Amino acid sequence: MNLSNHFNHPKEVENLPKCDANYVPLSPITFLHRAATVNADCTSIVYGDTRYTWKQTYDRCHRLASALRSLNISKNNVVSVLAPNVPAMYKMHFAVPMAGAVLNPINTLLDAKNVAAILHHPEAKAFFVDHQFIPRARDALKHLVSPPFVVSIVDRETPTGARLGELEYERLIAVGDPMRGHFMVEEEWDPIALNYTSGTTSAPKGVVYSHRGAYLSTLSLFLQWEVRAGPIYLWTLPMFHCNGWTFTWGVAARGGTNVCIRVTKPAEIYRAIAAHAVTHMCCAPTVLGMIVEARPDERAPLPNTAYGLTEATGPALVCEWLEGWDRLGARARAKMKARQGVSVLSLADASVVDPVTFARVPRDGRSVGEIALRGSSVMKGYYKDVEATSKAFIDGWFLTGEVAVVHGDGYIEIKDRAKDVIISGGENISSVEVEGVLCGHAKVVEAEVVAMPHKHWGETPCAFVVVKGEVVEEEIMRHCRENMARFMVPKKVVLVKGGLPKTSTGKVRKLELRVISKSIAREEEEEEEEARKKIHEQAVAVSRL
Amino acid sequence: MNLSNHFNHPKEVENLPKCDANYVPLSPITFLHRAATVNADCTSIVYGDTRYTWKQTYDRCHRLASALRSLNISKNNVVSVLAPNVPAMYKMHFAVPMAGAVLNPINTLLDAKNVAAILHHPEAKAFFVDHQFIPRARDALKHLVSPPFVVSIVDRETPTGARLGELEYERLIAVGDPMRGHFMVEEEWDPIALNYTSGTTSAPKGVVYSHRGAYLSTLSLFLQWEVRAGPIYLWTLPMFHCNGWTFTWGVAARGGTNVCIRVTKPAEIYRAIAAHAVTHMCCAPTVLGMIVEARPDERAPLPNTAYGLTEATGPALVCEWLEGWDRLGARARAKMKARQGVSVLSLADASVVDPVTFARVPRDGRSVGEIALRGSSVMKGYYKDVEATSKAFIDGWFLTGEVAVVHGDGYIEIKDRAKDVIISGGENISSVEVEGVLCGHAKVVEAEVVAMPHKHWGETPCAFVVVKGEVVEEEIMRHCRENMARFMVPKKVVLVKGGLPKTSTGKVRKLELRVISKSIAREEEEEEEEARKKIHEQAVAVSRL
Repeated sequence: MNLSNHFNHPKEVENLPKCDANYVPLSPITFLHRAATVNADCTSIVYGDTRYTWKQTYDRCHRLASALRSLNISKNNVVSVLAPNVPAMYKMHFAVPMAGAVLNPINTLLDAKNVAAILHHPEAKAFFVDHQFIPRARDALKHLVSPPFVVSIVDRETPTGARLGELEYERLIAVGDPMRGHFMVEEEWDPIALNYTSGTTSAPKGVVYSHRGAYLSTLSLFLQWEVRAGPIYLWTLPMFHCNGWTFTWGVAARGGTNVCIRVTKPAEIYRAIAAHAVTHMCCAPTVLGMIVEARPDERAPLPNTAYGLTEATGPALVCEWLEGWDRLGARARAKMKARQGVSVLSLADASVVDPVTFARVPRDGRSVGEIALRGSSVMKGYYKDVEATSKAFIDGWFLTGEVAVVHGDGYIEIKDRAKDVIISGGENISSVEVEGVLCGHAKVVEAEVVAMPHKHWGETPCAFVVVKGEVVEEEIMRHCRENMARFMVPKKVVLVKGGLPKTSTGKVRKLELRVISKSIAREEEEEEEEARKKIHEQAVAVSRL
Repeated sequence: MNLSNHFNHPKEVENLPKCDANYVPLSPITFLHRAATVNADCTSIVYGDTRYTWKQTYDRCHRLASALRSLNISKNNVVSVLAPNVPAMYKMHFAVPMAGAVLNPINTLLDAKNVAAILHHPEAKAFFVDHQFIPRARDALKHLVSPPFVVSIVDRETPTGARLGELEYERLIAVGDPMRGHFMVEEEWDPIALNYTSGTTSAPKGVVYSHRGAYLSTLSLFLQWEVRAGPIYLWTLPMFHCNGWTFTWGVAARGGTNVCIRVTKPAEIYRAIAAHAVTHMCCAPTVLGMIVEARPDERAPLPNTAYGLTEATGPALVCEWLEGWDRLGARARAKMKARQGVSVLSLADASVVDPVTFARVPRDGRSVGEIALRGSSVMKGYYKDVEATSKAFIDGWFLTGEVAVVHGDGYIEIKDRAKDVIISGGENISSVEVEGVLCGHAKVVEAEVVAMPHKHWGETPCAFVVVKGEVVEEEIMRHCRENMARFMVPKKVVLVKGGLPKTSTGKVRKLELRVISKSIAREEEEEEEEARKKIHEQAVAVSRL
């Protein structure tokens, strides 16, 4: 069926070159530019009695960007910030990249030593500190040989007089020139942000986003979450968390209003929702739970599940609700909602692959593999960590380390993290599954299961359980034996008082639990050895009789 | 405030390279891939009794792509199609770029000669023809020295037995290999579509879109028009019109259903809306009017204004409704709705600039300039037309040729097209404004105003008017004199019977009217000259007396 002789003029479509009018590097900065034009007089930020319009925010961002450049902050330099969800923190999401620099928002729950480590790693050139965190920042700076230039952020709403470093944020804005802050993004692959992971299973890593990735993530997230024009967005999710899941840039894209609050407490949240007619908010399930518990009469149906990670600029999978699912029973609906779902639009592909062959696992809801992502919203890589970067990017995929299955309809469901799978006598045990059974016990409040070394089985499950009331280990063990396959039953149950050890973002410190489980295994082995010795000695004694 | 000595380590964030996992060329093809995964068993296309799922559509597109490649259609080759909104037309929007080729959908309202001109210009390698248009295609092919390879599309719903050319569409699908249709887009700047403008003021031009531009336009349009997941989209807007304003690709992105109909008549539209619970449709105001007139009891409020052009991949400005506007009176609301508005998200900038200095005009609602656009959704350029391309791209802008003002709030309002401004004795006359007054006359149904050459004033308005009932030119002139400034009053009013000449997309052929106005001017000048001569002769005769 070769028909090449049909064509007398095999000339191709001529190559039309790029120009400034038809090729503009993708960057979230354009969202601010647009908001300043389209929503000039609309409220951009509300914080206590302070209010800004988009025109004012644009002006202040340009001033700050020009001030940063006059401080010799130049292209690809890192600017760190330690602040809650205050207006300055929001503006830095535009002003720092507008100066050509890279924004590094630091988790405010970290201690001074960890803050110092993060400032040191990318050699931050400037460090903005909200007055609330001045004592911690002062301690952190003591660890550094060559400290960054420090700017303190004073809060008009709650002035304390506390200062640190050379300059004050409002003074920087005042000396900045609104006409000189225009920095043109020349290459959309340039870095815009540097976010450190909290490191549940390994050391924190510096995740780098490009302007392109941030732009595409924002558009696709707002499209899929159906955020209409002019949202009133309440900042409960910390902006330091994946740049607030790109909502920092997205609220500008939709010309909305940022409702900033310093403290994320139920009373404050309720006040803000009522006062500003809030339409959208994001928060971790614990915050949502906190709100719901405070007013049980106002419980709302939980929004759809989303799964994300810093490396994918926040959400990577969303549980898109299919029309037919509304007709399912409550139990089946809950089952559907528990799935992490399908890829966000900015990803070109999301799949579950065999961790050795990288072949896609069958869509049978049973075959486990590792979640792999591909697309322009995946991070550029880990900062100053070639090894971790090359380990994460294999065979055209970004490997998340998350163990999952794919259902017949293509929806992905997480079973475990790769490091959380317990391999006992060649059988894979899902720690999530064991935890599920444990939590089914009426007195169990929280349960976490990790692998414990075992000389015979290789590994075996070890359960850490927080209980209410009086319970003995044996009662929990019995519950397990009655509700799961024998090989899955934890060989050890540890009753923990006062909650499990957690990271600053509320994730359980599995590394710590693994250390404990190892020492338990060692102790038990020693005891066993001791017992064996005793038996042996007794046997020898008997034989001597 | 230079603090460069603060920094002992002026090292930049290391350059993290692109890889297949974090840099995927933007292309609408990924939307189909995603739909085949996420919405595999959902209905992709409904057409009469024919139904496809996304999995089937994906499979068929791959088959068609592989068949095209086995026909030696290769990268950047042009594949033309002449078809109504049938499933084959939809699938070609994916299958042709999947084969690496460029889709060229031809306006089905064009005559054979114009179809031939479009096939000839890009040297189309293949030409798909729906059975309905076989006679016209046959005529068109007669004009070509080296005709393309022809594929006829037979309609299962309305089989006629008509055939043209070497192959039949369904047979191509049958011989195609679903496993060999995977073409990887290597460069997002590569062309995806070639759309010819209808040419109201000049000859048709071939507008080329890139994969990147098409992808970004789709995302931003669907975000701003708030298209939720799973839309049921009725195809009333022709797909040949800017690729259906990117809805071809967008319906896949949102996992929706395409409701295809062959004939866009009210009865058919009502039937489809009822049968398939249609949630979205796009159509020209005339189609909307047709629907509304058919059932006056079902009149809905008109959707927001949008302004677009082929060169900007469809919509470029949208009238985003601001919250406060709901509280305005009906008259003020109508005024706001009449504005074209603000830029779509995929544009980096939209402005009104002075056509000479390219400076932005003041935001005063009075200063006129030309609408200029900049962004990645602007076309690559005009195919094989370096001159037109370089004229359109000036000073980092794409100049639309549209005359407009910017209001204080940044919203843009069109006043005229650049070529429609009439310059009379140094004064600018907006033809739109004169037309507005003409249409205010109770008996005027339609009015179009163009420039007529005038030896004294340079230009002067010439009005072409369609009226109902008995009216004389003088009555229209009097109405003008009473309702507009003297210099704006048309020097000539032409009463047209049976409607104004229109293009295939329903736009008035201004070029034709200008030719007529020129000949009127010439005739009048000759008559005047004749009259002058007569007077002169009479004067000579008198002086001889």
